Amino acid sequence: MNKNIAIAIHGGAGEYSAYIKAHTQGYENGLQEALELGRKLLLDGGTAMDAVCTAVKSLEDNILFNAGRGAALNNNGVVEMDAAVMNGADLKAGAVAMVRQVKNPVSLARAVMDKTSHVLLAGYGALDFAADIGLELMHESYFISQHQLDELASSHEESKQQLLAKPTKGTVGAVALDKYGNLAAATSTGGTSNSLPARIGDSCQIGSGCYANNQTCAVSGTGDGEILIRNVSAHTLSMLMESNDLSLQQACDLVVHKRNRLKGDIGLIAVDQTGEIGIAFNSQRMHRAWAKNLEAAQVKIYSI
Amino acid sequence: MNKNIAIAIHGGAGEYSAYIKAHTQGYENGLQEALELGRKLLLDGGTAMDAVCTAVKSLEDNILFNAGRGAALNNNGVVEMDAAVMNGADLKAGAVAMVRQVKNPVSLARAVMDKTSHVLLAGYGALDFAADIGLELMHESYFISQHQLDELASSHEESKQQLLAKPTKGTVGAVALDKYGNLAAATSTGGTSNSLPARIGDSCQIGSGCYANNQTCAVSGTGDGEILIRNVSAHTLSMLMESNDLSLQQACDLVVHKRNRLKGDIGLIAVDQTGEIGIAFNSQRMHRAWAKNLEAAQVKIYSI
Repeated sequence: MNKNIAIAIHGGAGEYSAYIKAHTQGYENGLQEALELGRKLLLDGGTAMDAVCTAVKSLEDNILFNAGRGAALNNNGVVEMDAAVMNGADLKAGAVAMVRQVKNPVSLARAVMDKTSHVLLAGYGALDFAADIGLELMHESYFISQHQLDELASSHEESKQQLLAKPTKGTVGAVALDKYGNLAAATSTGGTSNSLPARIGDSCQIGSGCYANNQTCAVSGTGDGEILIRNVSAHTLSMLMESNDLSLQQACDLVVHKRNRLKGDIGLIAVDQTGEIGIAFNSQRMHRAWAKNLEAAQVKIYSI
Repeated sequence: MNKNIAIAIHGGAGEYSAYIKAHTQGYENGLQEALELGRKLLLDGGTAMDAVCTAVKSLEDNILFNAGRGAALNNNGVVEMDAAVMNGADLKAGAVAMVRQVKNPVSLARAVMDKTSHVLLAGYGALDFAADIGLELMHESYFISQHQLDELASSHEESKQQLLAKPTKGTVGAVALDKYGNLAAATSTGGTSNSLPARIGDSCQIGSGCYANNQTCAVSGTGDGEILIRNVSAHTLSMLMESNDLSLQQACDLVVHKRNRLKGDIGLIAVDQTGEIGIAFNSQRMHRAWAKNLEAAQVKIYSI
């Protein structure tokens, strides 16, 4: 048995904002809490899949983060959420898109993996499935925060043309290594404020914002979703780990800083079977936290 | 200017079927027609993106193929279609999922790429966008073929448990190299008969069923969509071309026959900047056709 455990989480990447500055302590507490929930589970012999789902659920339930409660509102003023999970041992994956009412989209993604032959269910089909299996549903108002109402109001004056040209971002995620040497990744998002209705981002697309493979690494992405999709960023990291003599951190840096030919903010967190953690982002901030075994947790928002 | 042009198309991979056997001539004619429409455009100096969209539209309009008209019916008896396009020169991509009523989903995917900052739009949002930009819409009955009604009827007696365990397949696609040295890929599907409503497959997911990068190759996938997603098959091929001294055919064989640890039918068509075409599949049949410059077109359904 591999005795190392490791976990890393993120709460989104992007530019400076007065709101984030004013809520620094809340964000740091939220990251720490999610990280420690996942770490405790791993130390107690839980699986990497359980750990990433637990950490992401904690972030989904935290109104400060753009996933689950506190999710961004699209151009219609509606919350639609995406999420995915992937299991490194058998490459099983589950994902959901355009989900309304489901309290924890990451749990629904997990259920798609565990209970169906599909990988991605969306919209009304995902909601029907969630109801079928008895997942907790909430009124749509549960998900709406004052902050996201303000965000939408501030951008709602943009013309349709401006809206169509605007990049999109905001995500949470987790990657973990368990005592059994297995890796897992989970990613969840409320999408972006004022997006076109029914836009689906990278978070629920395997290989873009979420990927796990015991032979390489587990990855969760954040930032401009369309950049992660077009670069197939999470899977690129995995393929680089397979074919090159790079450390995980070097590979993360390569994907984020060197190989990215497209303009936009992106960030990745990753972990491999040795418990090495890699984190890279090209944005002004990326909410993140990580820990290995019993070592002190690291919690950071800005680059230093 | 690179004077070579090349195009390859597919019309789905899977097992033998009496229906396909009975309609061999129709399938071969449909493949030939789509291929020659794309080739003519390339020979006349058209772009790879225009060529793959033209070829795929022809297959979407052909009721024999599971994309556009003739699409599979989901468990609710409804047609929901996915499609994607990707441009190798700038890694631009557009995709749509769970689309109803839109006569040519590939044209809508192209419009998402050309006219929005998003990559993937789904369901009601994709339909609203299609209406906004004036794409041709049809009644839902337009898409329904007697063959797909029969398919659904034959599988509708399956229990929910059988349904959830059933793999999913059926796709069309095209890849092309134009005179300017640019690559493009397009993929379109009606999904699978009797799938859970709102299941989204590989065809609209960049890196899984569709990918193009001038530096490596353009790829379109078919077969069990969930296998292509979990393997991130199209992007795997691209990464192998980048980092290994393999021919495109060798790389296709590696992805389909050697690296695939998951059970299921998959197939890939690909083209690179030299005009080399690679085709591999592990299923009993893959409808396919290809041509380079003025050479005789190849049209095949079975392995020989």
